[in-house]
Amino acid sequence: MTLLIDAGADAARDWRRVLLARDPALEIRLYPELGDPARITSLLSWKPPAGLLSQLPALRLLQCSGAGVDQLLDHPEMPDCLARGVQVARLVDPGQAHDLAAYVLAVALAWYRKLDVYAGQARHGEWQRRFPHPASADCRVGILGLGVMGRAIARAFAACGFPVAGWSTRRASCEQVETYGGRAELAAFATQCMILVCALPLTPDTLGILDGDLFTRLAPRACVINVGRGGHLVEADLLAWLSAAPEAAAALDVHAAEPLPAGHPFWTHPRIRTTPHVGAFAAPERVAGQILGNHHGVLAGRVPEHRIDLRRGY
Amino acid sequence: MTLLIDAGADAARDWRRVLLARDPALEIRLYPELGDPARITSLLSWKPPAGLLSQLPALRLLQCSGAGVDQLLDHPEMPDCLARGVQVARLVDPGQAHDLAAYVLAVALAWYRKLDVYAGQARHGEWQRRFPHPASADCRVGILGLGVMGRAIARAFAACGFPVAGWSTRRASCEQVETYGGRAELAAFATQCMILVCALPLTPDTLGILDGDLFTRLAPRACVINVGRGGHLVEADLLAWLSAAPEAAAALDVHAAEPLPAGHPFWTHPRIRTTPHVGAFAAPERVAGQILGNHHGVLAGRVPEHRIDLRRGY
Repeated sequence: MTLLIDAGADAARDWRRVLLARDPALEIRLYPELGDPARITSLLSWKPPAGLLSQLPALRLLQCSGAGVDQLLDHPEMPDCLARGVQVARLVDPGQAHDLAAYVLAVALAWYRKLDVYAGQARHGEWQRRFPHPASADCRVGILGLGVMGRAIARAFAACGFPVAGWSTRRASCEQVETYGGRAELAAFATQCMILVCALPLTPDTLGILDGDLFTRLAPRACVINVGRGGHLVEADLLAWLSAAPEAAAALDVHAAEPLPAGHPFWTHPRIRTTPHVGAFAAPERVAGQILGNHHGVLAGRVPEHRIDLRRGY
Repeated sequence: MTLLIDAGADAARDWRRVLLARDPALEIRLYPELGDPARITSLLSWKPPAGLLSQLPALRLLQCSGAGVDQLLDHPEMPDCLARGVQVARLVDPGQAHDLAAYVLAVALAWYRKLDVYAGQARHGEWQRRFPHPASADCRVGILGLGVMGRAIARAFAACGFPVAGWSTRRASCEQVETYGGRAELAAFATQCMILVCALPLTPDTLGILDGDLFTRLAPRACVINVGRGGHLVEADLLAWLSAAPEAAAALDVHAAEPLPAGHPFWTHPRIRTTPHVGAFAAPERVAGQILGNHHGVLAGRVPEHRIDLRRGY
């Protein structure tokens, strides 16, 4: 009946505070302090530390505290966990999707409306309009991934008048979005996109999807934005494309190695904006209800909310 | 039966090209070439040149080619025109409202998500998260003005999960927006806004509305964005507020004098972003139908679409 939390010390205390405020009778342990491991029925973690899962014989539920579950896919103890019937769910904070949409619009619109150019001019007192900027209606936006995150991003662009296309591994329907599905439709999806956003989960199907082949389909002045995973991007292809397309740009919040290593060319490329993985976070206040509902629900035999099928990878 | 166009030479030719493509039989003149002034029944202009209106005895309609009509209010020939029954309309391009929303979100979200801070860090290869950034849901946005422009801006913020308040001189209702009306409700509207956007027409009621009194109601880390008119802003009050609130900021696309004069403190203030009035423009392709419909409709006795009541000022 115990919920075990694995997180950084400050974050773990914050989770505990918020959960106990809602459910004062809840039994909570903060890793690495396990108490009686046989009482632990659910675990809140982004990437369970090596050896932990096999110490928890009564585990029924793993709730993943970050967006994306690729870090669980090749976890050495997961096959045994799944065989034991442990369920996996991820936290879905609708506010997190809004926050990620705000991040994506920030970097996309800053580029598209030339804020850096105008800031440079202002330093010299130069009043010079940089025309034409395309109207929103003439600026095709492509979103890779139409899950909770991708849909929120699509709605935000649509509200600014941008025509939005969306791609997913299997075609989905989505209001205000022209949808495409599967690798066969990827080129048509990307054609003439001015803004391309990757909000996919990382799976074998989507690894390296941001490659040279895709970039050449985009409009010559396109901006590529990655808020998926570093593994989606073929870094050398991005650099080659930016060399060939002198008005193209990129904004990257996720990276193959984080922190981005010292001396990496992305740090100082004049047309690459890098941010230290700050797109969005689940707020404890907004997901406490889901954590508690799943913790109690699984014990009562219910399927957890936002269950993940790890065989599909998302 | 002639439509007279008063605009810069390039723009005037562009208007003519687009209008004739839709209505090849249309009689068009480009100012200052009037042909027979007695044939001119409608005028497309942002601010009619001095003396022109009194030369046009058959004028029935003035269509204003820019957003805002404050430049017509104290035009010396307007009272006579109105007395003669000349109707005034403004062009409304729904795409223009979307474009303005994209501009406002660009400057608001760039500030709110600290893009300049992260860009500065990247130059030194510094991976440092700047927390906490408030969640969109905790970041109150206030929009002054709920016309076509203000509503489009409100919808765009709402789509990113921001709670939106709206103020107008008389309270209006607007989906997803908590609305306020009149000077008496201005302080309540502004209280704790993190982002304040002015999208008002300039009238005697709204002149100088962005003043020190209003600024002190905002959240201490607020960002003030002016896409209305320069006359809405009390410049000295903005500078004083920014001195008193070291985490506050402003983004100004419109200015009391344009171009912004050399040496003006706004050019180089570290927390003021200035742009050279590039928020949005009416695209000829998107308003040609309105121009032609009004030109012909007024002759048939119909009230023009988007008619302006100059006594109200918008």
